[in-house]
Order: sequence, then C-alpha cells, then structure tokens
Amino acid sequence: MPRISKKGAQMPPSPIRKLVPFAEAAKKRGIKVLHLNIGQPDIKTPPQALDAIKDAQIEVLAYSQTDGSEEYRTKIAAYYAKNGIAVTANDLIVTTGGSEALLFALGTILDPEDEIIIPEPFYANYNGFATSSGVTIKPITSKFEDNFALPPISEFEALINEHTKAILICNPGNPTGYLYTHEEILQLAELVKKHDLFLIADEVYREFAYDGKQHHSILKEPGLENHAIVVDSVSKRYSMCGARIGCMVSKNPEVIQTALKFAQARLSPPTLAQIASEAALETPDSYFEEVVTEYVARRNFLVSELSKIEGVKVAKPNGAFYCIAELPIKNADHFAQWLLENFEIDGETVMVAPAAGFYASEGLGQNQIRIAYVLNQEKLKNAVAILAKALKEYPN
Amino acid sequence: MPRISKKGAQMPPSPIRKLVPFAEAAKKRGIKVLHLNIGQPDIKTPPQALDAIKDAQIEVLAYSQTDGSEEYRTKIAAYYAKNGIAVTANDLIVTTGGSEALLFALGTILDPEDEIIIPEPFYANYNGFATSSGVTIKPITSKFEDNFALPPISEFEALINEHTKAILICNPGNPTGYLYTHEEILQLAELVKKHDLFLIADEVYREFAYDGKQHHSILKEPGLENHAIVVDSVSKRYSMCGARIGCMVSKNPEVIQTALKFAQARLSPPTLAQIASEAALETPDSYFEEVVTEYVARRNFLVSELSKIEGVKVAKPNGAFYCIAELPIKNADHFAQWLLENFEIDGETVMVAPAAGFYASEGLGQNQIRIAYVLNQEKLKNAVAILAKALKEYPN
Repeated sequence: MPRISKKGAQMPPSPIRKLVPFAEAAKKRGIKVLHLNIGQPDIKTPPQALDAIKDAQIEVLAYSQTDGSEEYRTKIAAYYAKNGIAVTANDLIVTTGGSEALLFALGTILDPEDEIIIPEPFYANYNGFATSSGVTIKPITSKFEDNFALPPISEFEALINEHTKAILICNPGNPTGYLYTHEEILQLAELVKKHDLFLIADEVYREFAYDGKQHHSILKEPGLENHAIVVDSVSKRYSMCGARIGCMVSKNPEVIQTALKFAQARLSPPTLAQIASEAALETPDSYFEEVVTEYVARRNFLVSELSKIEGVKVAKPNGAFYCIAELPIKNADHFAQWLLENFEIDGETVMVAPAAGFYASEGLGQNQIRIAYVLNQEKLKNAVAILAKALKEYPN
Repeated sequence: MPRISKKGAQMPPSPIRKLVPFAEAAKKRGIKVLHLNIGQPDIKTPPQALDAIKDAQIEVLAYSQTDGSEEYRTKIAAYYAKNGIAVTANDLIVTTGGSEALLFALGTILDPEDEIIIPEPFYANYNGFATSSGVTIKPITSKFEDNFALPPISEFEALINEHTKAILICNPGNPTGYLYTHEEILQLAELVKKHDLFLIADEVYREFAYDGKQHHSILKEPGLENHAIVVDSVSKRYSMCGARIGCMVSKNPEVIQTALKFAQARLSPPTLAQIASEAALETPDSYFEEVVTEYVARRNFLVSELSKIEGVKVAKPNGAFYCIAELPIKNADHFAQWLLENFEIDGETVMVAPAAGFYASEGLGQNQIRIAYVLNQEKLKNAVAILAKALKEYPN
C-alpha cells in the first residue's frame, strides 16, 4: 500500500473540528447545540449581493480573469480609497477566499525551512497553511492579561534570524478580538524595515472595530510599500463566508507578479461569487452601522454576563466577533467535549472552541476558550446560562 | 527590500498567457482574435444549473461543509455509479475546481524532493502545482506519430527510483486529445501495484470520448483501490468552468482523511457554485449526446481541413476537445506571436497555444501547436483559412 506524504501526516486537523463528532452525536440525541465555536455569523447577507446573482444573465458560466475582472478590482480599489488606503486595481489579486490569499502570500515570500513569526494565540488554520507550504511558524505569546496586545518588540528581535522572512498579524484578531493600536503598527513597521522582512496583515475584520477605536491598515504606512501584504475577504464583511472571495493586496509589484503565477495555475476565482461580491460593494454604510451596533451589543452582553460567573475572566475585545475567556477549569478540551456529551439545560447545550488549538506553544491556553458571538442576544443569553450552570456541575 | 521566495521565482508563468499581451494589442488595433488557445468552451451551461442559482432561497451565504454537502456528494456518487464506478459519498471531497483536487492530491502523497512521472506533453499547469508543492516532475515523452499513446512501460520502469511516489495521467488528454485504451490502463495499474505507487488520473474530460470508444476510469480497476486517485471537475462536463467546483476521489481512506485536513484549512468550496453543480447533475443525457456530436463534427472538420494544408500534420484525437498539430515551421512561439502581431484576413486572426509549453523536456514540441476546438464550425472554418494563408506568408 503506497504511503501518504510526511507533510500530509503532519497536517494539523482543525482544532475546532475535533469536537464535531460529539456535536453530531448530541444532535442525534435530540440536543440543540448553540454554536459559539465557529465564525459563521447569523447576520443577513446584503440583498444587493444576492440579487445580483439572480439578475445575472449568464449563458456560459465561463472562467473569470485570473486576478479578477478589472471592473471588480477597480471597485475594490475604490473601497480601499474610502478606507483611506491608496491602492490601484493592479495592486491586488482576487482570490478564492482570504485562505487562498494567504496561501499565495506564503508561497510568494517563503521557501520550505523559512520562518514566519506570528503572535499567538492565532487563527488555527495558519498552522495548516504553514505545514502545507513547508514553512515554520515561530510563535510569540501575547498575554491574556494585556487583552492580547502586541508582545514587546524585543521578543520579536530575539526570534529573528537568517531564516526569518515575515511577520504575520491578524488585525483585529481572530481568536483574540484585539485591535492593534497605531503605535503597535508603527513598531511592527519599523521592525520589518530594519530587518528587511515582509509584514502580512490579515485584515478581514477591518470593519469590526468598536468603541470609537480606528482600524489601522498596514497599507496606510508610508515606507512600508514593499513590505506590506494584506489578506482580505468578503466573508465576514458582508456575511457571505460561502462566497469564497477574497483578495491579496500589495504595493510591491514583484510580490503581485509572483503571486499572479500561483493564481494562473488555478485559473480563476469563482465567477458567480465574484458577481455577488462586486454587488456587495454597493452595500450602504447603514448596513455596517447596524451590524457593528449589533456586535457591540452582543459583546457587551457577553463580556458582562461571563464576568459574573465565578472564576471566569474575559479578555475584552475591541474588534472582530471573538473573545477569549479563561475558565476555572484545567482542560478546556475536556470541558468542551463534556458540554456536548454530558450537559444540557432544557435540551440545549453549547459548543465552544478550546483555545489551546490557537496556540503554537505546547501547554498554553488550556483553561481558555474562544467564543464567537455570532448568535443573537436571546441565544447568547441561553448560552451563558448554560455555561454558568455547566461550570458549577463540571467535575473538574 | 525584502526578497520573494525561490519557489516564487521558479513558478512557471502559464505558457498560454505569454501571448496574452499580443492578443490584447491586436484587439486594440481592431483585430478580431479567434481563440483556439484556451479550453473555454462556447457550449451553453445546462439551464438546470443556472436556474438553481436563481431559485435558491438564501438569506445568509454561509460556509458549506468542508468536503461538500452530503446531499451533493451522494449525488456525485450516483453519477459515478451510472458511469460504472463504484464509490460512496465518503470516498470523495468536493473541491474548488479540479485544480484544488490536484493540489490536495499532491500534498497528500508527495513531499518536497519526491518525484512524479507524467507522460508529456501534459497540461501545463501541472508544472505550477508541482513547483508550488516543491515536487519534481519526471516527464516521459509520448509521441506525435502514435497520436500520443502511452509510452512503453519500460520507460516508466527506467525512471522509477526511491523518490518516485506517483504517476499522473490526464485521460482523455489535454493537450493531446488521446483516450487511453483499457490495455494501457491495465499496464499502468500493474506498474503502480508492482512499485507501490499512487496513480492519479485527471478525468475531467470523461464524457468527451469519441468514435464509439469507451473511457476507462482508473477507479474501475479491481486491486487499484489504494492506489487510484481521480481528479474531477464540473468545468468541462457542463461547460461551467467559472463555477470552480471539482472533486478528488479515492477509495483509499487514508488518502481521503489526509486530503480532508488540507480541505479544512481552506474551510469550504464555494457555496453558490455547489448549488449550480448539484443541479447540473440533473442534466439529461441528450445534452451530452448533442455536445459530443458537436465536438466530433468540429474535430472531424478541423483534422480534415488542417491536414489539407501543405506541411501540416495532425495527431487525431479521440477525446477531450484539443488536438496537437505539427506545422512546417521552426518555432511555434514565434509563429503564434507573429499571427497576433502581423497577420489578419478581413480584420481577423487566430490565437493558438504553442505546444512547447506542454513539454517538460527542453526543445520538444517547437513546431507543434495545441488547438482547442471550442468554437463553432463557422469560426473554425475562418480559423483554418487564416492558418493556411498565414503559413504561406510566414517568413519561416
């Protein structure tokens, strides 16, 4: 029997998916599972996007342009301009989700054995992309006590060596909800210029910045043109995760030309979803205002209610729709599984994401969970009540 | 300025795209370009597929299941059963086009430095996927004189070493149009069993088998269960290249479980296109009968007319919608560019794909072009007339 690759064996399974069989078993027993474990929002997709699909006159569903149609790219550039980011249609490649944008970025700048520094906890799928690209992630731990602010630059300096090619941040962060300050972005900018590194920022949650705080894109920093690569996506912005449309943005022409070769190999991003994504750019600002208001209300409710539970601490998020909570338990993996296997209130239980899977350093985050506040407040209320009672009954 | 990766520098640009700027310049001069260079069919997408998108009631365009919905996978399994291929919904993963299926297959079975044997000429993007996966392609030349039949097994034996992990075929072939016989498939089956290799077959043109000849899927071969991996796609079958929906199929559970981890990292294939692809499975057989009749008529016309041109020879294809022609010229790259820059009849010219880009061995195919007969017969007639006159006037 032929053997699979070492790379294939090393590919990490999604830490969230480990629990899926237990959730399925719970559903088979008639239990309703409240999903706080995944970033699939319940927010409605803008009707503009969905109507465009219904209205499209298509006879042959043909390949689109490899880097996305010029019309769409021009409109994306206009979207960035509105956000104070000066890029042209030629500075970006439309991709199949933010995932593909990150894969192209990694392939463009890193060879196997190269290293990329990422503050942890980080979006767990970065592990999968790094393994499939054969590159090594060097984590730097950001602290729960600091709400996961940027770790001291000295810690980055200590890790940088001849294999280091890039630093990757997610801003605002999944799973932390942390929104980097301008000062932090400036520190990173200085660092990558000093060591001639790339700085990749996953900015898919750009619009989800709360409490009057502003999002600072790395694309706005003067002098960072050749260093900055942004990974972006329509998934969260317009609650259209299933579209699988994103883009990779850089003002470094060599980066874009190289990424384009990776893009050519896979021909084109999905045509139908591009039609929807282009139309989504017509979404009025009021949509985002409503959405942000809703998320802030959810976050406030969640943080305040969770904090009332004995032994529970929450790192307050200023962006995205995640937060990390510390629980009075030893092993969140076990607790999350127990919730699905052994606990319910009125036929309802909760699925959470154990946070250890978001850390690259062994042993960290064992008593933490990530909660995605993607459910309405009524459901969040039930979820918190379930967590509170569960923590009392859980045989720690 | 930070440097791009060696891998990025090595990524081959698409050989077809090299000519795109010349085609664009021609169009700007008012010249109409007949595209025989790409496999984008003019055949209409089945209305079932497009209507399903218009009829879909979507409020939140959510992620689909990582491996595709169970309903869709079950229907795909039924499609295979109809084609005499016994697989279940669990033996396959829905992918973003055949491209992603191939990427998952390569990642699952090959590590950097591993080797994969591919008969050449082959689909040029295999080069890009191999480079981005860090693996080495070992080509074996199939011969124009044999219509690109399978090279002797002894040539495969001679190449196999401890780094060899797999053999990849495209059946029927792009760019050759060659349909492998059952005997050839049996020879490959014996070979991969003997050396414990994987056999990947790109079968995206399965339905395009002509002259009463039958397509022989590697999934039908008893004893090949652990070796066979099929790359498939709806792109050509239903003329919906822009959907970007394919699948990877294997009865080897370790292969599927490993590929699933690559799939998890990118979350899910596009949701809208899956709706269209699922509905496309309802396409009546009469659609394929008409399409095949049309392609056969085009092929017959093309092969017969091209053969009438002095010095032109054509390898007769029994499948797909490509053929390779040998021209009385030294350098097809130059000729193809000359066609776009210096030639026209009544404001019309032809874009062809120089075949050298489909060979991995340096220097082969210099006097060959690939023609995709994806245009109607009226346009093909013009195209052949243009080629005939151009070959007379071309300053060789």
